[in-house]
Amino acid sequence: MAIGDDAAILNPDPNLQMVVSTDTLVADVHFKSSDNPTTIGHKSLAVSLSDIAAMGAKPKWALLNLTLPDLDQKWCNAFIKGFSQLLLKHETQLIGGDTTQGPLSITVTVMGETEQAITRNTAQVNDLIVVSGELGSAAFALHNPRKNKACNAQLRSPEPRLDVAKKVKKLATSMIDISDGLLADLSHICEASKVSAVIELTQIPINTIIKKDPNWMQYVLAGGDDYQLCFTIHIDDESQLPEDCCIIGQIIDTGEGVGGVMVLNQHQPIQTDSIAYKGYQHFNHD
Amino acid sequence: MAIGDDAAILNPDPNLQMVVSTDTLVADVHFKSSDNPTTIGHKSLAVSLSDIAAMGAKPKWALLNLTLPDLDQKWCNAFIKGFSQLLLKHETQLIGGDTTQGPLSITVTVMGETEQAITRNTAQVNDLIVVSGELGSAAFALHNPRKNKACNAQLRSPEPRLDVAKKVKKLATSMIDISDGLLADLSHICEASKVSAVIELTQIPINTIIKKDPNWMQYVLAGGDDYQLCFTIHIDDESQLPEDCCIIGQIIDTGEGVGGVMVLNQHQPIQTDSIAYKGYQHFNHD
Repeated sequence: MAIGDDAAILNPDPNLQMVVSTDTLVADVHFKSSDNPTTIGHKSLAVSLSDIAAMGAKPKWALLNLTLPDLDQKWCNAFIKGFSQLLLKHETQLIGGDTTQGPLSITVTVMGETEQAITRNTAQVNDLIVVSGELGSAAFALHNPRKNKACNAQLRSPEPRLDVAKKVKKLATSMIDISDGLLADLSHICEASKVSAVIELTQIPINTIIKKDPNWMQYVLAGGDDYQLCFTIHIDDESQLPEDCCIIGQIIDTGEGVGGVMVLNQHQPIQTDSIAYKGYQHFNHD
Repeated sequence: MAIGDDAAILNPDPNLQMVVSTDTLVADVHFKSSDNPTTIGHKSLAVSLSDIAAMGAKPKWALLNLTLPDLDQKWCNAFIKGFSQLLLKHETQLIGGDTTQGPLSITVTVMGETEQAITRNTAQVNDLIVVSGELGSAAFALHNPRKNKACNAQLRSPEPRLDVAKKVKKLATSMIDISDGLLADLSHICEASKVSAVIELTQIPINTIIKKDPNWMQYVLAGGDDYQLCFTIHIDDESQLPEDCCIIGQIIDTGEGVGGVMVLNQHQPIQTDSIAYKGYQHFNHD
């Protein structure tokens, strides 16, 4: 179902590629039912916009499928407020969706356009590895709900880094958004590009409050939900990096091993086996 | 999330319009959890393909968001079988989606292309009203689960009428799929086009077994889930109608009333107030 007809009609720009991303958020899995509905509305759109940013694209159209246990008008209004404020901010048009009764769940689909999509499988050996913003804030907030306002905001209302994507889209040789955690997501780039990566822990930008937590390394390397961007650039392009972007490592050859991510702490390799994260392949080196 | 990257990349045909439709099916609302998963897979795609058919478009790409209570491999395989058989039949490519844990629910988004989308708001006074296939079968099967195999198939595994859409796309002046029931869906055309409609009950094609049921009129006029097409054509184009399409009435002026649907039974107007259906506006005439 779409607004006003069986389907929405689009006239995509014939000179651009279209990118499409979709995410489902389920109550009490991806967010708490008791969370502020305005932040649920914001986040349910933000995660898909973040995927569009990771492709170096500009979002254009969105679909919202909302499954609600009952029609709580106050909840709906608050949800739509958070959703539509973010839509408006990124000049994205809601073109359709579906509303059904059932256990609370939200599916958002976003379509965007770009001259040339940036994918995960095009990182080159010697490229520099860059991240935007600070990492680990969302995971810190999840485990320390009352400690830091900025970290809480990062968890509840992440801002998709479309600003960064716009600035680096000509520069990035590969890109991904950090939704599963830095090691997992950088591993996705390495696997897809058939390369390995080495990163220096002390170069990763973090909120200083996190450093005091005994689990800080876990949050920074494996904490999901940050929705920052991780991308690679050619080694000669360092001077063109925008503000709020930090070089944290370099792409290297896999040698004879399987592609993976090696983490150094002040130039010394550290074991990351005990750091639980999804999708990680152990880095093989002699 | 999309297969292999943050988002799927499409290169739409620059000479065509794109249409997008999305539907969510929730367990024990839109289907029974205990239904055959192959038919659930089929139906979850069929309802969105039906919307694409109603726009006179050809489906090209699909997204599948699947929320599952647990990873039951046997159930998943059967679901994917039903889903992918229908995808293959209509040469539609699965380009992405999301898999999450939670109460069973399925969101399918289909994108299609067409030279010129057919909408609901372009029916003209004097146009003939046409339906494809037989109506009321799905509703009959819902209330009589063990009586008729063909009706059961219509309910569990409806075939989206992309075949009809392809044949009438140059002919139809407006079109909709019959998902809510004939009166409700034809009313949508009338409201959007600011016209009224008069239909003759005896002209509506039905499975003869339905006629023996005391509620047959309800099934035919207000039974949802048929996923046949209802469309209008210019009065001169009658001879060009393909097989399996029946003229059931004509578009008329609203006069001074609000647009609506008048039903005749052997040329005599009948009361449809007692027939429960969604979205219907009572037909006003003196």
